[in-house]
Amino acid sequence: MTTETRRIVVLGAGRVGGTIARDLAADAAFDVVAVDASDVSLSRLEGVPRLVRQRADFDQSGILDPLLESADLVVCAVPGPIGFQTLRRVLEAGRDVVDISFMEEDVFELDELARRNGCTAIVDCGIAPGCSNLILGCASADLDAVDRFWCAVGGLPVIRRWPWEYKAPFSPVDVIAEYTRPARLRRAGSDVALPALSDVELVDLPGVGTLEAFNTDGLRTLLRTTPVPDMVEKTLRYPGHAERIRVLRDAGFFETTPIELDGHSVRPVDVAARLLFDAWRYDGGEADLTVMRVVVDGSKRGRPVRQTFDLLDHYDAESSTSSMARTTGYTCAAAVRLLARGLWTEPGITPPELLGRSRTCFDFIMRELAVRNVVFRQSMEA
Amino acid sequence: MTTETRRIVVLGAGRVGGTIARDLAADAAFDVVAVDASDVSLSRLEGVPRLVRQRADFDQSGILDPLLESADLVVCAVPGPIGFQTLRRVLEAGRDVVDISFMEEDVFELDELARRNGCTAIVDCGIAPGCSNLILGCASADLDAVDRFWCAVGGLPVIRRWPWEYKAPFSPVDVIAEYTRPARLRRAGSDVALPALSDVELVDLPGVGTLEAFNTDGLRTLLRTTPVPDMVEKTLRYPGHAERIRVLRDAGFFETTPIELDGHSVRPVDVAARLLFDAWRYDGGEADLTVMRVVVDGSKRGRPVRQTFDLLDHYDAESSTSSMARTTGYTCAAAVRLLARGLWTEPGITPPELLGRSRTCFDFIMRELAVRNVVFRQSMEA
Repeated sequence: MTTETRRIVVLGAGRVGGTIARDLAADAAFDVVAVDASDVSLSRLEGVPRLVRQRADFDQSGILDPLLESADLVVCAVPGPIGFQTLRRVLEAGRDVVDISFMEEDVFELDELARRNGCTAIVDCGIAPGCSNLILGCASADLDAVDRFWCAVGGLPVIRRWPWEYKAPFSPVDVIAEYTRPARLRRAGSDVALPALSDVELVDLPGVGTLEAFNTDGLRTLLRTTPVPDMVEKTLRYPGHAERIRVLRDAGFFETTPIELDGHSVRPVDVAARLLFDAWRYDGGEADLTVMRVVVDGSKRGRPVRQTFDLLDHYDAESSTSSMARTTGYTCAAAVRLLARGLWTEPGITPPELLGRSRTCFDFIMRELAVRNVVFRQSMEA
Repeated sequence: MTTETRRIVVLGAGRVGGTIARDLAADAAFDVVAVDASDVSLSRLEGVPRLVRQRADFDQSGILDPLLESADLVVCAVPGPIGFQTLRRVLEAGRDVVDISFMEEDVFELDELARRNGCTAIVDCGIAPGCSNLILGCASADLDAVDRFWCAVGGLPVIRRWPWEYKAPFSPVDVIAEYTRPARLRRAGSDVALPALSDVELVDLPGVGTLEAFNTDGLRTLLRTTPVPDMVEKTLRYPGHAERIRVLRDAGFFETTPIELDGHSVRPVDVAARLLFDAWRYDGGEADLTVMRVVVDGSKRGRPVRQTFDLLDHYDAESSTSSMARTTGYTCAAAVRLLARGLWTEPGITPPELLGRSRTCFDFIMRELAVRNVVFRQSMEA
């Protein structure tokens, strides 16, 4: 199986999907079909060897069904709002898949379908969720007990401009959702929901300096799969961002209830999203960075241990690839290779923490990332 | 003239105009007609002795003209946008007037009309502009030279709530205008325009604590009438307000250029004004305060001197009168009495700094304010 050329259909060829398609096509083991509704997205993949571009809306079953039929493996890198329906369709077609659509729905609703069709669906397989889950999975297998999982992650522009000192590698609407949706986390064994942007703490990170970390709703599958009594995932920003966002949020600018203005209904959040869209857009060639710290506290052979994983990744100017696309896309591509090589064969919905419990899978993905210069610095303290 | 009953027509009976009308009607020397388009405003003056209420829009000349004919003296306390036209009309009717409409237009364009008709128009006669101008006028007459005028003033809620720690005693639209219009001030003899909210400095004020002071466009007539080489008027807020407002302003939420949303044109400032209208509205019976500091540096008999005037005024719970209405309205009412007693008879547009140069006028107004417990603490340093 590992010697044949495998056909990978990549659904969604935006910044991240395009990076995945390009990475896989660089591998003689794969032929890649990149599918997107946008000519602009597809044009960025022009001339890539072993890569065919296919323009299609994701509701055009006449085009998609034969594509899925022909696929050995599928990547779902579509926008979150259509993630669930797209993944269901791939599973209905009986194909193994790696998904980074970060859908809002409960992906485990598709578990039975996946098992019935004998499909493996590795989901939430980016940097965070993704690598953070892998790390916790690995630590859970390695340690005798895990007491606490603390993860903080952020994608940031290198150049900081007031007031936001932030730019969005994806739609501001999704960022605003992160800033308004209650953050579910676990404290002393109980799941609690706190306001987004709460518990702001300052964190010093090597190569970046002092950032702030605050609660957002990032634990996702971990709350279901992982019985660690204290778990929190936080978002990292340059200090002051959370307070400035709270000015907008607390003053009502993220409200979805319309107000009447001159006889028209206007949702404040739509105005905010429009204004932030301009303010948060990366300029062409503008450098971003991805920074992440994961701390796992637990015990091994009766002694308390702390494992810390630090990542700092940068924009790749040579290939004009954003750090967000690198860290997210290369993790996803590594999972594709994992499946292609038959290193994981369990059918069903598979969040990365399950992969991480296999040392083989964990090491494989970390090595694939390291080859692409996405390197976690690990340390262990007694 | 001082023994007859004088008829005062008060145009605009909102919070401030109503307070003026009530204060004047308490004086046996006056009969008052309070004119307003709003029944709600007029209803607050029900049953006040020596006060007649007249409902009228200010463009209803059939009602207004005979009222002005019958007036001995007029008070203009109308909204800023109709201030200029209303004042012109009063002067065309040949009536002396005290104006606190704070119009945007250059009021001196009406100077010739006033002189031709032999009318005195005391303008900008509230707390600031108003008392601040009086003080500078008085100091200019008292000192041999004035080198610097620094004034900071603010109306604030007693209870501070994040993010604004502010409420507006008048329309948020006018407050937003203050925060966006360039602040004209004078530095080393040159008039300069700086961004509003610039030069934030912290100021400790007795009875209030630490506030921040920042540039707003408050000097108005002083830039024309007063050749002091350094003059600045700043707005006082609880610390942090300016930065939070700048978040909104710099992120585009005060823009007047419409954006397109679902086929409708929406001006971001209209959305902001609507949201802030709710956030900045005083609750019924909610206490406000007015705080002001004026510092005049100059020289007398060859020696440098500094005069400082501090005001801290509070909401009057007994009469449910806001501090903003007290300080603004009582200054205006004092100027009405000044005219009624014949203490100032010069025709033409008269900003308060001209009154202040007369010690008699200055002392008269300060005494009238003190009687109403609006007290400036004065100090002089060599």
